[in-house]
Parts: sequence; structure tokens; C-alpha cells
Amino acid sequence: MQLRTVSELLSQEITFTEITINGWVRTFRANRFIALNDGSTIQNIQCVVDFEKLDDTLLKRITSGAAISVKGELVESQGKGQNVEILVSAIEILGDSDPETYPIQPKKHSFEFLRENAHLRTRTNTFSAVMRLRSSLSFAVHKYFNDNGFYNMHTPIITASDAEGAGEMFRVSTLDAKNPSLNDKGNIDYSQDFFGKETNLTVSGQLEAETYAMSLGKVYTFGPTFRAENSNTSRHLAEFWMIEPEVAFMDLPGNMDLAENFMKFIINYVLEHNREDLDFLDKRLQDEEKTKPQIERSDMTLIEKLNFVTDNHFKRVSYTEAIDILRRSKPNQKKKFKYLISDWGIDLQSEHERFLVEKHFKCPVILFDYPANIKAFYMRLNDDGKTVRAMDILFPGIGEIVGGAQREERLDVLKQKMTDLNISEEELWWYLDLRKFGTAVHSGFGLGFERLVMFVTGMNNIRDVIPFPRTPQNASF
Amino acid sequence: MQLRTVSELLSQEITFTEITINGWVRTFRANRFIALNDGSTIQNIQCVVDFEKLDDTLLKRITSGAAISVKGELVESQGKGQNVEILVSAIEILGDSDPETYPIQPKKHSFEFLRENAHLRTRTNTFSAVMRLRSSLSFAVHKYFNDNGFYNMHTPIITASDAEGAGEMFRVSTLDAKNPSLNDKGNIDYSQDFFGKETNLTVSGQLEAETYAMSLGKVYTFGPTFRAENSNTSRHLAEFWMIEPEVAFMDLPGNMDLAENFMKFIINYVLEHNREDLDFLDKRLQDEEKTKPQIERSDMTLIEKLNFVTDNHFKRVSYTEAIDILRRSKPNQKKKFKYLISDWGIDLQSEHERFLVEKHFKCPVILFDYPANIKAFYMRLNDDGKTVRAMDILFPGIGEIVGGAQREERLDVLKQKMTDLNISEEELWWYLDLRKFGTAVHSGFGLGFERLVMFVTGMNNIRDVIPFPRTPQNASF
Repeated sequence: MQLRTVSELLSQEITFTEITINGWVRTFRANRFIALNDGSTIQNIQCVVDFEKLDDTLLKRITSGAAISVKGELVESQGKGQNVEILVSAIEILGDSDPETYPIQPKKHSFEFLRENAHLRTRTNTFSAVMRLRSSLSFAVHKYFNDNGFYNMHTPIITASDAEGAGEMFRVSTLDAKNPSLNDKGNIDYSQDFFGKETNLTVSGQLEAETYAMSLGKVYTFGPTFRAENSNTSRHLAEFWMIEPEVAFMDLPGNMDLAENFMKFIINYVLEHNREDLDFLDKRLQDEEKTKPQIERSDMTLIEKLNFVTDNHFKRVSYTEAIDILRRSKPNQKKKFKYLISDWGIDLQSEHERFLVEKHFKCPVILFDYPANIKAFYMRLNDDGKTVRAMDILFPGIGEIVGGAQREERLDVLKQKMTDLNISEEELWWYLDLRKFGTAVHSGFGLGFERLVMFVTGMNNIRDVIPFPRTPQNASF
Repeated sequence: MQLRTVSELLSQEITFTEITINGWVRTFRANRFIALNDGSTIQNIQCVVDFEKLDDTLLKRITSGAAISVKGELVESQGKGQNVEILVSAIEILGDSDPETYPIQPKKHSFEFLRENAHLRTRTNTFSAVMRLRSSLSFAVHKYFNDNGFYNMHTPIITASDAEGAGEMFRVSTLDAKNPSLNDKGNIDYSQDFFGKETNLTVSGQLEAETYAMSLGKVYTFGPTFRAENSNTSRHLAEFWMIEPEVAFMDLPGNMDLAENFMKFIINYVLEHNREDLDFLDKRLQDEEKTKPQIERSDMTLIEKLNFVTDNHFKRVSYTEAIDILRRSKPNQKKKFKYLISDWGIDLQSEHERFLVEKHFKCPVILFDYPANIKAFYMRLNDDGKTVRAMDILFPGIGEIVGGAQREERLDVLKQKMTDLNISEEELWWYLDLRKFGTAVHSGFGLGFERLVMFVTGMNNIRDVIPFPRTPQNASF
């Protein structure tokens, strides 16, 4: 059974042959024009009905959300807005949709309402466009790495390690929740748990990815990661997907080149393959912007922001230089920043990152050589003894989108750092082994996939770029 | 910094120019020949050293596992076994590897030993080949679906639903493990937990995938799934990856065609792209088979098994017909089956499935229309009232590899089934909504990714086809 899609019909030459197409009714107007959508494209195909030839009971069942099968002839369209349409010869109702109770009416719904109906929200133009783009970005990620000799690696989701310290973790257990096994000292006896020890959901696959980089050379992960932080914001999820490439023999400048090349590729990929969806979301965002006060509006449209990334060289700037620029900047002098820049060593806020990108350099920026004490233990210490070979990539509108580093490959330096930070050598024996046996320079970075989808779609709430978001007090569907 | 790989060097025309290559020493013999590997291919590149020109201390540091950087000229090889080799002009030791303590010696290690050193096992030929194939299969999956108009969808990992009943689940919680919040009745007060209710790790993304199929048309998931079953076998993991396509308007025959087409594509993909790794694993398996008694040896080599799938039509056979064949079969008559076939309605065992594939039909087999009471609640009931539109695909050597079904799209039938099985309508309100608003025929299937990797690589233990396996009492690395 070869199923035709609306996308195929709209892109093919008109052959005036009999066709059958299935889909869901978006609208039915004047008892004559059905806008039919099947999810294959944001476009509907117009099905023209001769109501005099159809049964009245049937006509009444052609309502928004109903699944129908249409037989007819594909012809050049008489109306505006489409090249082809279907002259309907027969309609079968596959599944009714009661207009009194169907949640997705042909009108504007709030995103809050649609989140409560996340199982149906991809029946709207906005969410179908967002999720098609999410899918396309996902494929572009795999394609980029595959084309460039990287191996995909599935790092473990359940982990007994909490060494990375990236955030609060979710405990995974099969012990009786109410009466867990206790040991002699009255503590939980995790030896009785499924894995024989305390386990959590992973916060990152990086450390495991390093083991494969140090044998297969170029690898990447693309999987779910978790944070049990009680952050009820439009930028945080408890469960989100992360992309983490890791490359042996690659130093920090190589890491920057890789990240720039990668980001440009995936954004060019969707510009090329998903133009209709992007144009729709671009217009949506412009309409939304118009409702805001002038001062809060973005300088760039969605498409302009994407081209800002693809068309500009990413400027490399050291953290120290960035701090100088920010300290001397107008918003800092005039105390317009919420967090004023004074001393070297502080972490940058989104407002500072955006200033550098949007106002000062007017291009994507890669900051590097951050203060050691605001970055993770595994980043390579510079000879100055106070900065590490870290890099963050900053984009317009959102600030940091990629974070990476050259890793500390020297056993003695790494051990000292772990001792200083009270990280257990016993737990990370395998990570230290990589420095004992054939260690080498290596680097990688992490990209939060939902942050990327937000940037590309112009959606403002991270809950709206993942099918079924997990946030504090919410694990619906 | 453009990094060269061994794979690139071996496949390029000899240009007699100066090159630099990094990698790990596999062997160093006669103080002259370094076999260097960087993971980009199973092949090593031979680096020829003039030991009289090199320092003795340096020579001693060229040991198995050491990371080195080699400068030299790429020339036509004088020896056998390779076309090109490197005449070394300079060597830098990047990272030593103490031959006294390095676990991966240039000899045969048991798979058990290598599992304990899973962070280093991809430095062996077998495991690097397996993991390159795993990566290639993963890409083939994404490519197939992308090329055929499917959208990739990330279904949730943490779920409040346990309706699918596919198996025991892992609890996900941030409540104090020892002193969890209790309610008035003295039970765990999950309203105090992170998500405000009891949550678990998902066993399948299918139900959620159906929501997207019923709006975007053709979708697929490829993500981790979990079973908290205490099965310490060579075929079970607590954490494994699953591929689940779901298609609107597709019936069971369409589902069979899709699955056959898909399986042939991905296997052809690796036959075309990973021939060296497959040939190595084919030989490995043949060597292993030789150690077994004649009666236990496989009739087919690894490559023959792959061609058995790509070159044969998958035979469609109803469950009822299969039971007839099995009941009348020699092994059943002669009581050679461990589980004898008597009555219609029993579940088939791997021995029965393999008999059908390897002895009776001599091709991959798709069994369909299974007894309703051995299959899941969401499968579409046939008019006979006792079978459902389920299908299993059976492969040589392993039996079932794919399980799928046409889904029950009729609201009343589905509700009755849920009532019969005591499945909460309240919990699955959103799943029922799909049958209330624009329901339609739809189908899909599930493929356990590790089962596929085992089939393609010929590895016998599922712990050896995933980077860091999670099994009862084991969550190492």
C-alpha cells in the first residue's frame, strides 16, 4: 500500500489522474472547500466538493479535526494561494471530530492551552512546523557527523557516577519506596537495589564519550540528559536532549573550528530543506513582536538571525578581553546591565553575552580561556595556572548556545584538581585510565538540542520545542 | 587544524608528500614496524622506523597502547598486507602506556575481561568493529526514515504512565530515599515528589508516537527504553535502545512492507559501507564456530545470514498456519522441541521461530494475526474476535527481531479492552482522545536496536554490542 502525501501532491506535475489522499480537515468553508492536512507539510491541499452531489449527513461530518479519505482528480487550481487542488469525486469519513468537544478549533489558541493538549498540538501550523524543524535538525546533526567521520555512541542513561557535578540528579531505584532495605547503620542498603549501588539519571555523556574518542578517534553522543533542579522557567527542562562530540588529538582552536562548521551546517541544512516552515515561523514571530513595546522588539527577524550565524565568521575573543570590553561598555558605565561588570573572574550573564554579539562585535562570538574556578574539573589548565581551555559560543537573542573545552590530558594535573575539588578517584578510575594509557590532547563540546530548536524556530518557551516537556510538577502524557 | 585519519591515508593516492598522523600503537615489532591505529578503520597503518636514527629511550616508549604522533613520507609498501606505509622521519610520544600495567595486551582477551575494561575495549579489533557497525546502523536508521518522509520524534524518558505493561519499571524520584514524605494514610506522598506524582523510566515510546502519527502522518522514535527485570541472560539489558515507527492510514500489510523494506535497507547499508568490519567479524565468528561441536554450528556465516535477509522475500504466514506447520513438523513429532506445540493459542519460542525460518521456509518470515490474549491491549481486534492484527518478524539464528501491529482505532473496542484488562481510562485520556477526534487506521512496529546489532555483528552476548551495558548488579562506568 503506497500512501500518497499532501507534500507529494503539491510538488508533482499535474497529471489529471484519479488520486486518493487521506488527512485531517483543517477547515471546511462554504460547503465547498476543504483544507486538508496530513502533517507532511505546512501546506493544506484544497479539496473542492460539489455539495449538491453529496449527502447532507456526510457534509455535516466534514468538521475540523475529522479524518477523511478523499478520491478525486488533481487539477490546476482556479483560486489563489495554491497551484493545484482536488476535484472531489468521493469522500469517506474515517474518524469524526465533534466540533462541540474537539479542543483544536480553527482559531488562535494560547500556547498554555496547547501545552495542556500536547497530544493534539501538532495539529496546529505552529507546532507541526516546530516539530518538523526539530526532526530536520536532528537529521542534520547525524548527517554532519556521519559525513565527517564521527561515530555515534550511546552513552548510558542510568549512571552510578555523580562526579560531573553538572547539577542535581534523579535517583533511579527499584527498592521498596516506603520500606527500603537498610544496612546495619540504618542507612539505605543500596547493595539490595537493582544495580547493587545508588544510581541516578545522567547529566552528561561526556566522560564516557572521552573513552570512545580515545580509541575510535571522533565520536558524538545525542541522547537525553537530566537535571532535577526546581527551575520553573521558560529555559529549563528536567529532561532534555544533548549533543556532545569528542575528538582525539584536537586542541581548542580545532574545537572552535569544528563547532563553527557544525553550527553553520545544521542551520544551512534547515534553511535549505525547511523553508516553508521557517517562513511561517518567521511571520509568526514578527506578528508576536508587533504586540511588544518597541524597546523590547528584536533587531532581527528569525531568518535574519539564522543568516547572521551562517554568513558571519565566529569571532574568537578571550574571556579576559571580553571582560575589558564589557567593563568599558556604555551599558556598564551607565549601569544599564542588571549585573554590573567589575572584577575579572565573574561568570557572564546572558545580557553580557548578547551585548558582545549583538552590539559590540555584530557576529557570533566564541569566548575562550575562562577562569578555572567557574568551569568544570576536566578542562585543561593553561600555563597561567588560573584559566582553562574552555570555550562558549554566543548567539544573538539567547547568549550561550555551545559550551566546550580542551580536556585535561595530564594525569598529575587532573588528579590534583580532583583532590582539590574532593572528586573521588576511586569512582573515576576508568576516566583516569585514559590519562595513564596513551593519553593525548582531546576536545569536545556540548549543545543543548532544545536551545538549538528554540533558536531556529523562534519559540520563546522551551516547553514548546519538545513533544512532551518534563518540568517540576509536570510529567503529563 | 585539519586532522588526517588512517582511513584517509589508506584510501588516498600515494603522493609521496610529508604527512603527520596521530594514533595508538597496536604492535611494534623488530624495532622497525609500528602498527598504528586511530579508530577510523579496522586497518592499521604500518610505520617503518629506522631504529639506528632514533634514540633508544624513545624506542622503548613505543609500546602497545601508547599515543604517538608520526611524521614521515607515505610510500608504496614493500611488505605484504598493505598498499601504503609511512617511512618515519620523526616520532613524538604523546602519551605513554606502561606495558606492565596496560590491560589491553596484544593477545586474545576474553570478552568477560574486556567487559570489565569496557572503557578500553574499543581499542581491540572486535569491539572497534562492533561499535563502528553500531554507529553505521544508527545512521542508516535515521537515513531510511528521513529519505522516506518520516519525522523523528523524541518521546519522554520519564513517564507517569505504566499502562503499557511491557515489564517492570524503574522508579524515578527526588524524595528522600530513607525518609520519604508520607500522606495521611501513611503511604508515600508522591505529590511532594519532583513531578508531583509517581514517575518511572519508559518501557516504550509507542503510545506517545501514536499522537504524532495522528498529526504529522509518519513518525519514528529512536531512544532508550528500560526494563527492571532481574534477567541475567545474554539477551537482556536493563537499558536498551528501541526504534519505533508509527504511520497514520497504514494497515497491517502496509506495516509488513515497511518493516521488510526498512530491514533490507539498513542491512544493505552496512554491507555497502562497513565491509571491512563485517569481514573481520565474519572471520571471528567462523573461528568461534570451529571450537563448537558440529551439531551446534550455524549453517550460515555472518555475511550469508545478512544476505539471507537482503536477498529473500519475507514470507507472510498467519499464526494459525504456523501452528499447523509446527504441530506437524518433525521436531515436534519426534519431541525434539523443548516446548512441544499442541494447542492453538500458545506463545512461540525461539526454537519454533528458528525452525520456521531456517528449516521450513528458508527465508525471513512475518507471522501475523496472533491470539489476542498473548498480545498487548492496543492491537486491533480482528472480526473473528480472538486474533489481533499483530505481526512478528523472524530472522535466522535469533527468531523474533521486530514486533508490530495495526493499532485499535475504534474507541468502543479499545475502551472495552482496557476495562477487561483493568487499564485506567483516566490515565490514558489523551490516548483515547486520538480515537475521539479524527481516528484512522494506523500501524507501527518496534525494533530493539541491540538485537539488530547482535544480528549484524554476530556477537552472542548483548553486553558486547552496547558501550556500557546496564544489567542486574552492574552500572559500571
